[in-house]
Amino acid sequence: MEETCVKQKVAVLGPGSWGTALAQVLAENGHDVHIWGDNQAQMDEINTYHTNRHYLPDLKIPDSIVAEKSLADAVKDVDAVLFVVPTKAIRVVAREFNQVVKNQPVIIHASKGLEQGSHKRISEVLAEEIAPENRQGIVVLSGPSHAEEVAVHDITTITAASDEENLAKYVQKLFMNDYFRIYTNTDVVGVETGAALKNIIAIGAGALAGLNYGDNAKAAIMTRGLAEISRLGVAMGANPLTFIGLSGVGDLIVTGTSVHSRNWRAGNLLGKGHKLDEVLENMGMVVEGVSTTKAAKELSESLGVDMPITETIYDVLYNGKEVRQACNDLMTREGTFENEFTL
Amino acid sequence: MEETCVKQKVAVLGPGSWGTALAQVLAENGHDVHIWGDNQAQMDEINTYHTNRHYLPDLKIPDSIVAEKSLADAVKDVDAVLFVVPTKAIRVVAREFNQVVKNQPVIIHASKGLEQGSHKRISEVLAEEIAPENRQGIVVLSGPSHAEEVAVHDITTITAASDEENLAKYVQKLFMNDYFRIYTNTDVVGVETGAALKNIIAIGAGALAGLNYGDNAKAAIMTRGLAEISRLGVAMGANPLTFIGLSGVGDLIVTGTSVHSRNWRAGNLLGKGHKLDEVLENMGMVVEGVSTTKAAKELSESLGVDMPITETIYDVLYNGKEVRQACNDLMTREGTFENEFTL
Repeated sequence: MEETCVKQKVAVLGPGSWGTALAQVLAENGHDVHIWGDNQAQMDEINTYHTNRHYLPDLKIPDSIVAEKSLADAVKDVDAVLFVVPTKAIRVVAREFNQVVKNQPVIIHASKGLEQGSHKRISEVLAEEIAPENRQGIVVLSGPSHAEEVAVHDITTITAASDEENLAKYVQKLFMNDYFRIYTNTDVVGVETGAALKNIIAIGAGALAGLNYGDNAKAAIMTRGLAEISRLGVAMGANPLTFIGLSGVGDLIVTGTSVHSRNWRAGNLLGKGHKLDEVLENMGMVVEGVSTTKAAKELSESLGVDMPITETIYDVLYNGKEVRQACNDLMTREGTFENEFTL
Repeated sequence: MEETCVKQKVAVLGPGSWGTALAQVLAENGHDVHIWGDNQAQMDEINTYHTNRHYLPDLKIPDSIVAEKSLADAVKDVDAVLFVVPTKAIRVVAREFNQVVKNQPVIIHASKGLEQGSHKRISEVLAEEIAPENRQGIVVLSGPSHAEEVAVHDITTITAASDEENLAKYVQKLFMNDYFRIYTNTDVVGVETGAALKNIIAIGAGALAGLNYGDNAKAAIMTRGLAEISRLGVAMGANPLTFIGLSGVGDLIVTGTSVHSRNWRAGNLLGKGHKLDEVLENMGMVVEGVSTTKAAKELSESLGVDMPITETIYDVLYNGKEVRQACNDLMTREGTFENEFTL
């Protein structure tokens, strides 16, 4: 692993809005960036017009970024590979990567979620599919970041977490500049679970807004939602203090207070009295928090963790529970203690 | 101390919007509530018209609430006393209370801030001024709560913290109902410092919005601001996990994302290029965060705690530093580690 003041060759797998924005950061930091995706026309558009209109319509992509149609070409001799494909595609792309990679790059991922069915974290899936001889280690990159704002050089802060602190520092140097600031962390479990589970709370925050509740209720569900996410995270092996960081509170502030969040909007429609089927049809796209709620409920049951808000949102989503009644049931539970972890 | 399913006599000292809203909660829970303030006309208004138009114009105050012109009358035979006067009035009201109280009530306070000059927490001031034989203990009530929303029975959650857990539970029972939910905590230092210091971050969040930054920047300053508030709190004796709770993150979500917050608005004007003098004149009222920033800077220096955001806001407020330059200086510091506390 070289010092990142030296130009690095980096492959970005996943040309969505976040992958494109991260590729831009890397290119502006002077690295040799190769972006790969399976839509040939999109790759041609990037190489020819230096745009990615479907995902970031206003962005002029740096000329130095090369779009690759072949995964093998994209990852040839790379120092680092950034996986930024949707959660459901992670396993298949990692498997394909494992077959074509010839050296041992640092593996970075910036995807959020838990694998459907297995409830595995992204780094667990990557570790299963990429042979140890094909990777130097795994780093997760996560935090509060609308790609559109990164694209225009707005101030953004995110976390780079790895079991191996030197790899987290490598990724920090790779990405950091005067508009994009990276903090290192060694709690991979906490960073990944915070990023995935916050979508549940965003649905709940949207639902309360749909019921016309105000700031007090928004702060209530975000804070107490965070408390139970932390509780589940700790049962999975996380440090509870990670949830006060960028991939926890930070990401929740962006997701749980933004009308641009799909999860928030889905919750908002539920709060206004629409049924889940209508909501999903109306939105016409995947609402990650819906499956994450199911995953979290199953995990909380298998790990014996109390998650009253998640359970209530599950009942609203999957059992047709009426939203206002759900709120009332949450508010009338027995009083409890706030600070459950001690140092 | 009696069980609170039995009707309690409670004195509410401070008839502002928050005192009035809390008095309403207590009255609706069936308690005998006596509210005291030094504005005789306001006391007459409450007793005659059951309104408090200057503070909560739309509220019909429960008829059972009695407004008292004499502090001695207000606290006669009370089971609990709630101090909810401005920070700068706490010491003088506590001293006066100590002279007239004849029994030993539970002392509760719902004020936020640090004493000017001494930088003492509210509960420290109360403990200094109220003789041990005149109080059963001290409980702080704090959390994300616009009084206007409590007045209309919106969902609200707050923390009751005391060194003595049974007193926190007493206060929990006193206030809790189906729209007002209380969580107990034993970390008084953490709850009080979180409540006071969050105003600094609200100024910073307002300033970034004034510079037209978006959600990423908002989440960045709130999360990293919270990190340094926690750092100072820990040096003062707090549990860092308290800052992930209602008086930390919770209150920050309400203050740091709301245009209704005076501190946020002051920061916003600074971000738009106005000078502090103009801003304070323009607002025509106290902006607590301005003096809190000074207090936190002095505390951080005496305790040897690194608080780069607070220091930067101090430079903007007191040394005329240009806001955009201040942001840039913060963003270009050396990279750092996120998770500084370990369990």
